This record gives sequence, C-alpha cells and structure tokens, in this order.
Amino acid sequence: MDKPSEQKSTHHVVIIGGGFGGLYAARTLNKAPVRVTLVDRRNFHLFQPLLYQVATGILGPGEITAPLRHILRKQKNAAVLLGEVVGFEPSRRRVILADGNIDYDTLIVAAGMKNHYYGHDAWEKVAPGLKSIEDSAWIRQKIFFAFEVAEREPDPEKRRAWLTFVIVGSGPTGVELTGMVAEIARESLKEDFRSINPRESEILLVDAADRMLPAFPPELSEHARSTLHDLGVQVRTGVRVTDIDEQGIALEGSSGKQRIASHTVLWAAGVAASPLGRMLAEKTGVQSDRLGRVMVSPDLTVPGHPEIFVIGDMAHLPGKDGNPLPGLAPVATQQGRYVARGIERRLSGEKQEAPFSYFDKGTMAVIGKHAAVANIGRFRFGGITAWLMWLFIHLLLLINFESRLVVFVRWAFSYFTHSRGSRVLIATGTLRLPISGTGNNESPETPG
Amino acid sequence: MDKPSEQKSTHHVVIIGGGFGGLYAARTLNKAPVRVTLVDRRNFHLFQPLLYQVATGILGPGEITAPLRHILRKQKNAAVLLGEVVGFEPSRRRVILADGNIDYDTLIVAAGMKNHYYGHDAWEKVAPGLKSIEDSAWIRQKIFFAFEVAEREPDPEKRRAWLTFVIVGSGPTGVELTGMVAEIARESLKEDFRSINPRESEILLVDAADRMLPAFPPELSEHARSTLHDLGVQVRTGVRVTDIDEQGIALEGSSGKQRIASHTVLWAAGVAASPLGRMLAEKTGVQSDRLGRVMVSPDLTVPGHPEIFVIGDMAHLPGKDGNPLPGLAPVATQQGRYVARGIERRLSGEKQEAPFSYFDKGTMAVIGKHAAVANIGRFRFGGITAWLMWLFIHLLLLINFESRLVVFVRWAFSYFTHSRGSRVLIATGTLRLPISGTGNNESPETPG
Repeated sequence: MDKPSEQKSTHHVVIIGGGFGGLYAARTLNKAPVRVTLVDRRNFHLFQPLLYQVATGILGPGEITAPLRHILRKQKNAAVLLGEVVGFEPSRRRVILADGNIDYDTLIVAAGMKNHYYGHDAWEKVAPGLKSIEDSAWIRQKIFFAFEVAEREPDPEKRRAWLTFVIVGSGPTGVELTGMVAEIARESLKEDFRSINPRESEILLVDAADRMLPAFPPELSEHARSTLHDLGVQVRTGVRVTDIDEQGIALEGSSGKQRIASHTVLWAAGVAASPLGRMLAEKTGVQSDRLGRVMVSPDLTVPGHPEIFVIGDMAHLPGKDGNPLPGLAPVATQQGRYVARGIERRLSGEKQEAPFSYFDKGTMAVIGKHAAVANIGRFRFGGITAWLMWLFIHLLLLINFESRLVVFVRWAFSYFTHSRGSRVLIATGTLRLPISGTGNNESPETPG
Repeated sequence: MDKPSEQKSTHHVVIIGGGFGGLYAARTLNKAPVRVTLVDRRNFHLFQPLLYQVATGILGPGEITAPLRHILRKQKNAAVLLGEVVGFEPSRRRVILADGNIDYDTLIVAAGMKNHYYGHDAWEKVAPGLKSIEDSAWIRQKIFFAFEVAEREPDPEKRRAWLTFVIVGSGPTGVELTGMVAEIARESLKEDFRSINPRESEILLVDAADRMLPAFPPELSEHARSTLHDLGVQVRTGVRVTDIDEQGIALEGSSGKQRIASHTVLWAAGVAASPLGRMLAEKTGVQSDRLGRVMVSPDLTVPGHPEIFVIGDMAHLPGKDGNPLPGLAPVATQQGRYVARGIERRLSGEKQEAPFSYFDKGTMAVIGKHAAVANIGRFRFGGITAWLMWLFIHLLLLINFESRLVVFVRWAFSYFTHSRGSRVLIATGTLRLPISGTGNNESPETPG
C-alpha cells in the first residue's frame, strides 16, 4: 500500500472514517510533521444533521455532501484512500482492508454509527432508519410513493394504510422527520392529486419513553408535543413496538395492544456503533458497551494502546453527568481536534493535554416551519427564535460555500412555496406500482 | 381505472410520456373541454439537454427534473398517472398498463427514445448511453471511480487503462460529454490525488462519420475539433467500433484495426424509439422505420387512426429537406402544442390545421468553457458568443424558477472554481474497489 517514494520515516497517522470526527482530526493535523491517510468506504463527507431534509425532498444529496478529496486537496500531508476496513492487527500496527493492508504509527478510529433494530433484523428491511445517503433515498421513495399508490387505490381501507405514516422514536431525528412528513401531507402535496386528499393522511410519532424528546428538558418536550399536535400529528409515548412488517406496526402500551396498518414505517429509535468498534475492542482486549462503543480512556485512547484513538459516536466516554457523551456532531468535532492536538504534542515532546472534556454549546431540534426547540446552557426556548437560530447555525456549518448558497436558495423557496425541489425519485430507479395496491416492491432497486 | 365520480362523457385525452412532447401537449390543453390523463413510468419531467451536466457532476438530478404532478397541479382538467404502458388495443381505444387499462377518446403517444447499440446488447452493459437519470448516475460513477482506482493501481499499464476515456459518437451529446470529461481531468481534479496526475488522462472521441458534429456545417465541425484538440482530446473520425468490453474498445478505420485499453467507454452513438413505437405500428398496421419510429401523417396522426397521434422523438415525419425531423426538444415541444391545438379545433368543429411544420430556431452544442458552436439560420459561429447564448437559453428553458436559480449558482461556482458540487457517488451505493485493480464491479448496485 505504501509507496517507496514516500518517506517511510514520517510519522503515519491513519484515520478511519471521514465523518465529523475523522475529518476534523485530519484537518487539525494540517501543520503537524506527519503524513495522514484518511480511509473511508465512501468518497464524501456527509453533513448528517441535514440528512432528514434529503429524505423529505427539500435538499438534494449533493448539497449535504462534499468529496473528501476536494476538502483535503490543499493539505499536502493528507491523502484520501477509498477502501473498506475489515480488521485490525494492533500488535503489528496494521489495519486490514478488503483489498490490502495499511500500516500506521498512530490510528484514529472514527467509523460512526449505523441503524440498530435491537435484534429485529426483519424490521430493518421494511422500516428504514436515517444514517446514510441511501437511507435518505429509500425514505424519500417510501413517502412519496405511498401517495402515488393511494391515488390509484380504490379500496378505502387499503388506501388508508398507504396514507398512514408511523415514525418510531421521538429524538431529534424522529421529530424532524415527523414534522417534515406532516408538512408534505398538509402543504407540499395538497394540490397535486385528484383522487386523494393528502391532508387526510394520518401521521403518528411513537416512543417507548414516557415523553418525547427525552434528552431535552420536560418543558421543551411539552412544547414540541403541542406543536406537532397543531400539525395534525398524533404523538404516542409510553408505547413499545412489538412488531413491524410490510403491512404495518404492532404497538403495546398501558392501554393494551394495537395494530396499525401502514406501509410507511420509519425508524428513528436506535443506532449502534459500527461493527469495527467490537472488532477493535476484541483485538485490543478492552470493553465495549451494549451499543458496541469502545470504552476509551479519558484521553480517548484505547486502554493499553496509547497509539490508538477512538472518537465520535463510536467512543464510550462518560460526560460530566456520568452518562456517555451523546452521538452528536459537535462531540465528534471537538474530539477530532483534541486527538489531533494530542498527537502533535506527543511528537514535539510536550506533555499530554488534560483529559477530553466536551464543551456543550446546546442542542436543538426542528419541528416544522417556524418551530424548533433549543436547550442552550440555562436557556430553554421554542418557537420562531429557536427555528431561526437553527437555520442560521446549520447554514454556517455546511462545509462548502457553494452548498451553503444552494441550500439557502432551496430553503427560501421551500419556505415561500412549500415546494420540494428534490421530490424526484431517482436514486432508486423506476417506480413500479404494486399490481394489487397492497404488494410491496418499493424497496430500492438497481438502476440501469 | 376510470372512477365513477368522473364525467365519463367528457372527451378523454390520454398522453403517454411526460417529456417535452407530452408535457407541452398536456399544458396546451389547459382550457380545452377535455380531461387529460398523462401517463408516465416516472414521476418527473426530465430536462434532457442538461443531462450531461448531471453525468459529469456539475448539477444534481433534482435540478433538471420537476415532478409532473407539481407542474400540472393547477391544471384541474389534468391528472397524472404513474404507470407503465405495455400494449395498445386501438379497436377498443384502450391502452394496456402493467396493472390495469385506460380508455381514451384521443391518444397522444410521446414515449421518446432509448439508447440503441445496433444489436450489440453486450455493449450496453459496459458503455452507458445518456438517456435517463440512471444513465447519468452510472456515467458519473464510472468517470470519478476510474480516477479512484487509478490512484491505487501500482501497475503503470493498468493505471493507464483507468485513465483512458473513450466517447463514441460525436453528435452534440458526445461532444458535450467529451468537453466535460476533459475539464474534469484537466481542471476539477488536478489537485485531488497524490499518486496520479489526472491531467495525464487520455481522452478520445471517436465517430464513424468522416467529420465530427455531422449534422452541423463543416466549418463548425472544424471549429469544434480544434477546440477539443486544445483541451487535449484526440478526435478520431472515420473510425468504426467493432467491439466494446470491460477491458476496452476495438476500432477499425482506413489505417487498420486498433484496440484501446479503457475502463470508461461512453456511448453517444445512437438512440432508437421506445419499443412502444413498433408495438403501436403493428397494432395499427402502419410502418415504422429502422429506428422504430412510427411513420405518421403530416398532421402527426397514425394513418387510418385520426384519434391517435405520435409526436416527438418517436415520430418519423420528413422535414423540409426530406430527412426525418431530428430528435430534439424544440421539435417535440412544437409538436405537442400542435396536436393539442388540433384536438381543440376538432372538438369545436373548426377545420383542421395545416400540416405540422417545424420552425427551426437553430441548434447548438457546448464544447467546454467559453466554447460552443451555434448554427442559427444563416449564422454560424463558435467561441464565447455561442457559449454565452447557450447558457442563457438553457437557463430560461428550465421549467421551474427554483431550478433556474440553483443551476445559475452552480454554474457560477463551477465557472470560477472548477468545482463539481455533485461529484458524490450516491445513486449507485457504496463504491467497491476491485481487488486487483483490473476487476470490474463498478456497475450500479442496490443501496440499503
């Protein structure tokens, strides 16, 4: 893998994963006397916080992604390697790729999270989560396709199942998806059909927790619930999912069991660390938690392996309140910068930094037009102020200026016209309607 | 299919295909005393003239598509039906769909063209053409993936095959693709790689005709050739393709046979009418030409069936010079408007319009930055004037204003920075590198 022309003597930092953690680590190593190799299965960085807008047709995939090579093109000590990591050999300081090996002096593992269905593999086939760009294409397909089938379905009961949307999980992602589905049904599509009225769709948000947005203070949960209620969404908390299949979802709560017929169940109820977490933990003899996150030392190294860091969503590190730090972009970004600075200090012989400490600038969730909740330090607020703040911050965080401008244009249009410029069902090939109106062939298929 | 609530007595116009012909026919029937059903397999209208920019990463798919339902949402006499036509029963005035039937009083068939490999089905698997949005995703994947593989390929000869790009067919599409591939290699990617220099790529444009852009006047062909030459493209005319496979392309010309090793061969050498053309011709007992186009009467009806029109790329109608009218958006648009007006006249008892006559506003092809050729009436020119004119006209023709603005932003960025905002390889799932560097698994695969 290493080419003879390169200086083998230069300290080699290998970073696995081009998400927030990995990318910010690479960039912070800009001036360090190292060579950096960023390995990713994909050729792009994904701005995950806006993924739900791709899933709901506001943005196109190109607007929240940026090629890793392009981001790092000026950083001459960094190279990007498109490859899939399949194993580790910590004793030889080697990472095994599907098609070769790569040796490191320091390793940063930042491979992120994937959807997690708590062992119900069958649910994964019918209820897409929202972690990858493909997930977002599948969700978009499911949502808009459901209205198409309903338009052609003469049987009222079957039609109702196509116009029922269930979102499982009421964290920020679930709430954002729900708000968007409500806006699609109530506004974006209101004039588009002839046999159905999209406004008659039923939209449910369910969660096993006893209130929605459980990570937020109770008053913001209540604010979000009443905002969603005004958008015509039924919020059901304290309700457990017992089954999901192509025909609907089974729920169980204090008021008993219920089955809801729906062809569009979306999953925002759980994520787990990339399998690389468990793999690395086994090889290094350290512990991982029940979500597969690696239990790291306070300086984010793997215990016993000061040359291996695990950062971002894959790392289990207790925060000030004793709970593990949440899987948020700001945590990953700060950790990426922290380990990069740590590596630089080590190489220059300075003493180590203090343990990593997360600076919490606050958390927000968007519910719908003019509506969001924000929990920032001692300030807790909702409504249009939170919403404007959310818009502004997310625009600024987009990594390239072109995307920023395009996203701004799309948001402005979507705001004034309710249009969805990217409603088009592309990534998943030609739509095929089920013959009977009840079949299910809306899973992604191969184009070309 | 028809619902009892609809007025069965209203004259029912069924339009097959939501391209330029079908869509403009539907819109022109806005005020007519008819009900219109527009049937398409896809939920969107595609602005085909800019498809090559999606294939080369300048634009995203959402920017050149618009949902048919959304375009027609205000037109209360029109409905959109997502469905696949599989046959005709002209005697019963019925169209057979994959999942039902639909009856018409008047039928407009406008199902367009598909890629045509002159019987070489195997070529279709390796050399994508550029007719659909999936084609454009596949081409994008092939182009950018080739550089990724080359970056990791140590063998110089194999590397060279990954950095060789062959475009077959030197009509406007072939020229536009070639110009874009040249710009990607020479400018967009010049800083992105560490082991290869994308500028060393070889780009070939081949055509069996004795000059490129054969439909344009010779001086414009010569202008285009010298512009491409300046971009480092080899243009080979008078050269026939005898084979294409995963390893390269075999050519035969006056100077003998030659094989070129290349993993990226793009096909812009032929299109043929949708199979619905032949199907309809058989059922109505009329002739179709060798490209499967229906030989229509001067008023665009099928001879013997005044209630069936065929328009756009699928229709074979001789122009003023005796040759069939070309498969261009303006031809389809004018024909769509013509037949819609004809239907209105018939229903109001007015006499028929004069035979269809194409008003040729001219043709253009873009070669690269600041370079295009235009053939407009007696005026023939190239260079920056033609290029600016092309930009301006194509921006204006985009069907919705949001796209127009976004495309303008993207073009401006691409102009000043050579960036390609949509370089990201999404529609086709996770990239997998071939183990050996010579395998070929870059065909589109299923996400999720």
